[in-house]
Amino acid sequence: MGSDTDSCFIIDSLLPVLQSLQDSAHFIIFGKKECTQRISPCSYISYEIAYESIEMGDHPLWAARRKKNSSLALGIQALKTHSIDAFISMGNTGALLTTARAQLKTLPSITHPALLALLPTKKRTTAILDVGANVEYKSAHLIEFAAMGLAYQKAQGVAKPTVGLLNIGKEPLKGPKELQQAYQELEKLSQNHDYPFFLGNIEGREVFEGTVDVLVTGGFAGNIFLKTAEGMAQFLLNQIPSTSSLEPLQHKLDYKKYPGAVLCGVNGIVIKCHGEAKIQALTQSILTAIDLAKKAFIEKIQAEISSFYSQNR
Amino acid sequence: MGSDTDSCFIIDSLLPVLQSLQDSAHFIIFGKKECTQRISPCSYISYEIAYESIEMGDHPLWAARRKKNSSLALGIQALKTHSIDAFISMGNTGALLTTARAQLKTLPSITHPALLALLPTKKRTTAILDVGANVEYKSAHLIEFAAMGLAYQKAQGVAKPTVGLLNIGKEPLKGPKELQQAYQELEKLSQNHDYPFFLGNIEGREVFEGTVDVLVTGGFAGNIFLKTAEGMAQFLLNQIPSTSSLEPLQHKLDYKKYPGAVLCGVNGIVIKCHGEAKIQALTQSILTAIDLAKKAFIEKIQAEISSFYSQNR
Repeated sequence: MGSDTDSCFIIDSLLPVLQSLQDSAHFIIFGKKECTQRISPCSYISYEIAYESIEMGDHPLWAARRKKNSSLALGIQALKTHSIDAFISMGNTGALLTTARAQLKTLPSITHPALLALLPTKKRTTAILDVGANVEYKSAHLIEFAAMGLAYQKAQGVAKPTVGLLNIGKEPLKGPKELQQAYQELEKLSQNHDYPFFLGNIEGREVFEGTVDVLVTGGFAGNIFLKTAEGMAQFLLNQIPSTSSLEPLQHKLDYKKYPGAVLCGVNGIVIKCHGEAKIQALTQSILTAIDLAKKAFIEKIQAEISSFYSQNR
Repeated sequence: MGSDTDSCFIIDSLLPVLQSLQDSAHFIIFGKKECTQRISPCSYISYEIAYESIEMGDHPLWAARRKKNSSLALGIQALKTHSIDAFISMGNTGALLTTARAQLKTLPSITHPALLALLPTKKRTTAILDVGANVEYKSAHLIEFAAMGLAYQKAQGVAKPTVGLLNIGKEPLKGPKELQQAYQELEKLSQNHDYPFFLGNIEGREVFEGTVDVLVTGGFAGNIFLKTAEGMAQFLLNQIPSTSSLEPLQHKLDYKKYPGAVLCGVNGIVIKCHGEAKIQALTQSILTAIDLAKKAFIEKIQAEISSFYSQNR
């Protein structure tokens, strides 16, 4: 629920996808009555009716406290009680974050969970965080984002992942004070780490070169970065006449097909799919959720975060 | 001076361009001795030797106060004394802003000059400000940016330009507090204006649709936005095999060929060309400077800004 697309239409489109994935997972759909009615429960699908819904305009804190029967609240509750291994939502980001923090709690050493998105670049897939969970931030939160990003990439098999700070110039004194402080702190941490992971400030232009594995940023700038990259890609691809030779590129860069962002730092696998996401993006999110659950992602990221902070104490 | 490219090389490449423009303007080059030595003064070119240079790492305030013989300081001085009609710099943004503010003073009603850049979109050329002059900002500064952006577009012949705020969602309560306040203030101002100019929050993705004539943002997010758009464009265009059918697109979207940003709100035409700018970008900046000077840009923008603020008093 809470998507910009009609929820019943999403369920209709999703059912054949879930059927094709029936050997990989069991699915529980949390949704309002008129949508869940369309579902015939079977060996791989069940549903729970959500009698309330959180609107995009609702105040996140208010909605998280009051709407205990929203699909979002029911899903996080199911994750908390281990009825499910991963939860995907297309709803209100703030309410999702607040509910997940309150119900699942954060991982040790983490006070500020962050949304992690993946960006294809020239050389590698860069993890960007935060892309929207923390509009206001302190330098200590950026250090947490770096720790989580490194942990994520290690869990994905990258041996010695590197970190950069999204900034408006290379020099340590560029950008807001919080970024300048984070620069100093990351430089110190990097020197005490088992390898120097911090590569300094990275400008928006350079990110696409694939210079770093992890791009650390506050949630406002990170969200602007991601949506701008998507918007520019879309703008360009629309201008390219669809000839067969470029279809693979258009396919590769269609952000509608990209999975959602992983809410890192809470004790459970939570994926936020953007509100305008189409069925391909939702499918990608489901595949990501299955992959993370099978990899025991939470245990891995928790071990890596604790190793990061213990090296630096 | 102060560019990432060798300054003497820039001058060498620039001389034939200036020759081709000799009927449109007289050019004064401010540069260090070893570079200006390459110039043979003639009817359309003269030079002034700058005995100091501001480095990218110099603290802007310090450099602006101490290095009175930098090319940047000499150029702004020449603009102040009307020896020149427009000044273009590739140097330190902070030092340029500080020097321009101190020497040229700001236009009436403006306390915070802003860098205005142009972005091609589906429907129109959108003016974005601020793209890097004010990393920290208050909501009142965003209103000034809106006033300057509207004035710029009116001076360019757009009859009823519109304004949007770069934000991470459409709802009035999205983003940092300063943006939320600016949203409220712009909505009020728009109601009292001779037409409703404010179209609300615009997400990074939507900008490229060409929804607004003026995109208002703080300098940090604006700079991230612009460089990300450029970086993504470059990334995509590099992946497109150069076939003749796409060359026009590649040409159109090569940011290296885009002119610099106009420093709006100071009493003089100042253009900041990014440090990595190539000769095509510098040429575009020169053409822009000549165009703005011939249009009596400062008088026009001043009249429009004063009309904006008088309507809303």
